[in-house]
Amino acid sequence: MKRPFYFLVFLAFLFSCSMIKADDGYGLWLNYKKAPVQVLEEYRQEVKSCFIAGRTPTMAIAEEELFSGLTALLGIPVEIVTETEDGCVVAGRLSDLPFAIPKNISDKVTQTGSEGFVIATLEVEGKNMILITAHSDTGVLYGVFHFLQRMQAGKDIAPLDMVSIPKVTLRVLNHWDNLDRTVERGYAGFSLWDWHRLPGYIDSRYRDYARANASIGINGTVLNNVNANPLMLTPQYLEKAAALADVFRPYGLKVYLSVKFSSPRDIGGLKTADPLDPEVRDWWKKKMDEVYERIPDFGGLLIKANSEGQPGPQNYNRTHAEGANMLADAIAPHGGIIMWRAFVYDNNVPEDRAKQALNEFKPLDGQFRDNVLVQVKNGPIDFQPREPFHPLFGAMPGTPLMMEFQITQEYLGQATNLCYLAPLFKECLDSETYAKGPGSTVAKIVDGSLEGHTLSGMAGVANTGTDRNWTGHLFGQANWFAFGRLAWDHALTSEEIADDWIKMTFAQDSYIVNPIKDIMLASREAVVNYMTPLGLHHIMGRGHHYGPGPWVTGGRPDWTSLYYHRADKEGIGFDRTPSGSNATSQYYQPVADNYANLEICPDEYLLWFHHLPWDYPMRSGKTLWEELCLHYYQGVESVRKFQKTWKSLEGKIDEEKFNHVRMLLDIQEEEAVWWRNACILYFQQFPEMPVPEGLEKPDKTLEYYQRLSFPFAPGN
Amino acid sequence: MKRPFYFLVFLAFLFSCSMIKADDGYGLWLNYKKAPVQVLEEYRQEVKSCFIAGRTPTMAIAEEELFSGLTALLGIPVEIVTETEDGCVVAGRLSDLPFAIPKNISDKVTQTGSEGFVIATLEVEGKNMILITAHSDTGVLYGVFHFLQRMQAGKDIAPLDMVSIPKVTLRVLNHWDNLDRTVERGYAGFSLWDWHRLPGYIDSRYRDYARANASIGINGTVLNNVNANPLMLTPQYLEKAAALADVFRPYGLKVYLSVKFSSPRDIGGLKTADPLDPEVRDWWKKKMDEVYERIPDFGGLLIKANSEGQPGPQNYNRTHAEGANMLADAIAPHGGIIMWRAFVYDNNVPEDRAKQALNEFKPLDGQFRDNVLVQVKNGPIDFQPREPFHPLFGAMPGTPLMMEFQITQEYLGQATNLCYLAPLFKECLDSETYAKGPGSTVAKIVDGSLEGHTLSGMAGVANTGTDRNWTGHLFGQANWFAFGRLAWDHALTSEEIADDWIKMTFAQDSYIVNPIKDIMLASREAVVNYMTPLGLHHIMGRGHHYGPGPWVTGGRPDWTSLYYHRADKEGIGFDRTPSGSNATSQYYQPVADNYANLEICPDEYLLWFHHLPWDYPMRSGKTLWEELCLHYYQGVESVRKFQKTWKSLEGKIDEEKFNHVRMLLDIQEEEAVWWRNACILYFQQFPEMPVPEGLEKPDKTLEYYQRLSFPFAPGN
Repeated sequence: MKRPFYFLVFLAFLFSCSMIKADDGYGLWLNYKKAPVQVLEEYRQEVKSCFIAGRTPTMAIAEEELFSGLTALLGIPVEIVTETEDGCVVAGRLSDLPFAIPKNISDKVTQTGSEGFVIATLEVEGKNMILITAHSDTGVLYGVFHFLQRMQAGKDIAPLDMVSIPKVTLRVLNHWDNLDRTVERGYAGFSLWDWHRLPGYIDSRYRDYARANASIGINGTVLNNVNANPLMLTPQYLEKAAALADVFRPYGLKVYLSVKFSSPRDIGGLKTADPLDPEVRDWWKKKMDEVYERIPDFGGLLIKANSEGQPGPQNYNRTHAEGANMLADAIAPHGGIIMWRAFVYDNNVPEDRAKQALNEFKPLDGQFRDNVLVQVKNGPIDFQPREPFHPLFGAMPGTPLMMEFQITQEYLGQATNLCYLAPLFKECLDSETYAKGPGSTVAKIVDGSLEGHTLSGMAGVANTGTDRNWTGHLFGQANWFAFGRLAWDHALTSEEIADDWIKMTFAQDSYIVNPIKDIMLASREAVVNYMTPLGLHHIMGRGHHYGPGPWVTGGRPDWTSLYYHRADKEGIGFDRTPSGSNATSQYYQPVADNYANLEICPDEYLLWFHHLPWDYPMRSGKTLWEELCLHYYQGVESVRKFQKTWKSLEGKIDEEKFNHVRMLLDIQEEEAVWWRNACILYFQQFPEMPVPEGLEKPDKTLEYYQRLSFPFAPGN
Repeated sequence: MKRPFYFLVFLAFLFSCSMIKADDGYGLWLNYKKAPVQVLEEYRQEVKSCFIAGRTPTMAIAEEELFSGLTALLGIPVEIVTETEDGCVVAGRLSDLPFAIPKNISDKVTQTGSEGFVIATLEVEGKNMILITAHSDTGVLYGVFHFLQRMQAGKDIAPLDMVSIPKVTLRVLNHWDNLDRTVERGYAGFSLWDWHRLPGYIDSRYRDYARANASIGINGTVLNNVNANPLMLTPQYLEKAAALADVFRPYGLKVYLSVKFSSPRDIGGLKTADPLDPEVRDWWKKKMDEVYERIPDFGGLLIKANSEGQPGPQNYNRTHAEGANMLADAIAPHGGIIMWRAFVYDNNVPEDRAKQALNEFKPLDGQFRDNVLVQVKNGPIDFQPREPFHPLFGAMPGTPLMMEFQITQEYLGQATNLCYLAPLFKECLDSETYAKGPGSTVAKIVDGSLEGHTLSGMAGVANTGTDRNWTGHLFGQANWFAFGRLAWDHALTSEEIADDWIKMTFAQDSYIVNPIKDIMLASREAVVNYMTPLGLHHIMGRGHHYGPGPWVTGGRPDWTSLYYHRADKEGIGFDRTPSGSNATSQYYQPVADNYANLEICPDEYLLWFHHLPWDYPMRSGKTLWEELCLHYYQGVESVRKFQKTWKSLEGKIDEEKFNHVRMLLDIQEEEAVWWRNACILYFQQFPEMPVPEGLEKPDKTLEYYQRLSFPFAPGN
């Protein structure tokens, strides 16, 4: 009679876990739970065992994932069979399959390239199977994760007949991690990379990191900060990077590095870093040989040049193209690529910062080598809660433009605010540039389809750190997840992605999924409302960017708030129409007019493009001042609604996760009120108009908010 | 038929834990596992249920601990009964017990004071029970942990008749944690305190931290670095400290703070911090009122004054006593205490740094208020791998001297070397000072028994951080554990403590316990041998103190290596005999002679007290140079033996823990060779004698080792 045994083992295990917190969030969206009854039977019908074709380190991972995933999802140990049988899941490269497959399926596989996969139900010799196959073992691994995710989300698994091919070739995380383990704009603790103990000590977390990325199709990671330390290229650190690459490799995750343009001088002992200097070119060539010696599948380099004080080719009167091409030539023999950032800051303050990137880069279109991508932020300023899409998208048809999104919430509440970013990403990707008429969306430029570029990429500035739940705020995981899913397929909707993530992270029951989804889908607009409504931007606290700072002035004008909101007695907003900086002219028609023409300019971009009087009559019939106030108050109200909704989940989800989010929502409510009050009180000085009737009055003074100081705010 | 159900739940649970790593070390020594068969039956005989008397937050914790602990240890759910019954464990304060207990037991309880406890087997109304009782609920909680630890270690639990009373009243951790979350001399990641998100966000880890401390009797924690930031005393941060105090309180863990002596100027707006200035005295008084307003049971203050650039009373020509007493008067009304550090650095370089603390503090004996303790490091220099005990112990009979040990391994291999510190702690505690003749051990001075002080304390500089296993190196946990156990009872042996820790952390089987214990007990001597044998000290790398640096010179002499080893053509060692600095005269007789007299001075202190020629004939018959070499090589050999011994455990202990330690032992071996080669090559320049026959020759040059640089070594 074994019953007590299992019972005891289970109990003992439970209690031995007592301090481990099974739901501290470490498991991300990969905590396979037993499927709910309504689908369990179907799943058990369809899946009885698995068969793995081919033996590679990547296939071993696919096998382990399939076994542990299916066993947990089905609630019974799934056998790994050595001969295909009825009801088995077959995973393997096309070339490793032990049986011939129908032409209609093999035809599909031929389209999948090096990373795509096919999942199909088929019958071979009278046996019904589910086939997961691809050209590469990485493709198979992606297929395995996709298959398991369908089950985690309670979707049908029969009959299946699908092809999935990533729309973008480079899907990479950018870690702004420093060698001292601090993370610039990191709000989830410190760097995952324990540089000091590498290469000798391999933290088991490195594997879990690679696994998480593979599960959402991310195939590259830039290990270090774009404000790069030249020591990264010394043998001492290359050895450490190589150790990480060895761990990541079987997960299809390539290592990339950020480099400092002046490295030949900083660590090479040369007198110059002039990209046209033969010694410099030779130094980089030899350095790349050395890198590939250690990391044969090294991905490439990311460079921030002539921006915010970083050195670059302009220090030697060379163009960005000349700088990028020199590196491109050094790395080309090894098949590497260069990601050259378009986020540039002139040393002279421009009349309009929003125009600078295009002014500098558009003229260089066509001058870059084939293995260079220009990496462009989603908007022309800097990851603000809302920006119009960057005018460079569509302006450089001859150059692959890589998207740079920010997953870490530098300007969107950092790790204390719940803000689901998929709607922000989608808003940009779906934007019509009209570069080639209607349908020329940013997405089509990024994926290369509009101009037929084969090289394409999407980068996300990572929000990961040493915090046990990886992202500081549990819902930060959803942003990492959403970035990966959109980099693979930008056609997905924010809602689909949220739906999957919630089901994989919490549960499939609609009474849990729906309230959480409501919060997520409303969260980004809430943040925009209590921080920067109606097109306001760049009015946060100085340096750490934590909290409001509309009063920030002094120092470099385009690093102040006044430069951007331009509030005065007359009105508020940045005139970027032809009567102003004429930044609107950087867009194609009809986008340019759409923004420049006050009649049709959308409210959400109003103060981005227009300077308007405080009593300007809005479409709503209210004055601009009233409308501004209402948005700020609406933002706070949304958060209070989130709190209520969340409290309704008490007892229905894991207690630790519930409390984690509850505490953070309480902080978010305080911070939303802080933003609202500080901004209202600050702007109110100019029109001297009252806060509209019925709205709670700020309970503190403007001076109080201006005096607040946060010398140790993280990520700075 | 429920069998499958449990089986599936268990499996599902297992796999849902797949990414959680049940044995990542987070559970410390508190992962209750099912007792082995040889004791299980006895345990189940004796323990059938538990009865909790009295309701307080602390008793609720005791109940949860007893229930989950016993259930896991016995492998069956233990009922919590509301009426005492045969075979129940009764836990509660004496005043809360529902029955009268025999006088012989109640007499024992009367001796236990506010923290001690009694555990006794007794029969009441024909029911056999195990009683865990005390005056305070904290005492009961300590008793519960002690009882569970007996079972974790497989010890008898019947019949029990024991009293346990802490020998030292203040058992505190000193966290050298900064407000930016870096940790000075921290090698386990970053600070546990997420200051930015406090007080709103309470990390569940805070509770686990308090629980771990309570389990070993630690009753105080100094939250911030002794190099204190004055902002710690601002309302913004006191609010955060109060939130931590609220979490720690039910675990009997009091919060203390390090303060900067110049705070009245830094944050108080006063012109001076002169301790005799009425405004200053008033400022501190008000500040203490404010602190106790927020933290009613606040423990007190730790001060580093006039040391390494920190301000102090001497800046105003006042004595340490005048400075300490001013703070003592401010905090006395609230029942708080002052821990005043004796680790002082004169701005003028002393002829012998080892003499300074005594020279400055001995004259002040008797001048300190009753609520002041002077906190003295175990040795006169600075936490070296081996130092003679500090001469202040015994030199200030009129003052309670608090011991300051360093748990974090600043000079003992940081987080990459396995070094069990109990032997180091014991070596100091058991040292005979002869302050009052034989038997006047350091331990008796620290626990107050020699001079009859009621206030006594032992501080440990914490080795905890954000690393999942708390201490970076799994065996660092043993040092945290050993500190707590020795602070409670310094009579315990290093071996007893290691035995308990191994059984609680790994398993009780002798084939696992013995090899691990062999490594632990030999580890500290190994570190001494490959770093600083024969009394050498302070020859590590500059700044980060990582790795060897016998060549370190320049800057302040007493911060260089040459100042301490004094190696030259003639010989090596620091002459601290009457013919030299005469530091030996700071000790009582016969200790002074024992150290000063070359004939009897123990080898391990030889070069600490004597400067000797390279060919000095050692007791072994070898020359000093040969003996020095042999010790360095012996150190490396010991580590290689540790590696072999550890490998023999493969497959017998948890795989993740096994690999964690295996990787670190490999690093330790490399670092031991590094220390040995660098020191041998450096010292060899002077005698120009060869490395003795048969020893492997250093494979690198001295220049190679001198060129190594570690700009991002942690903890700096």
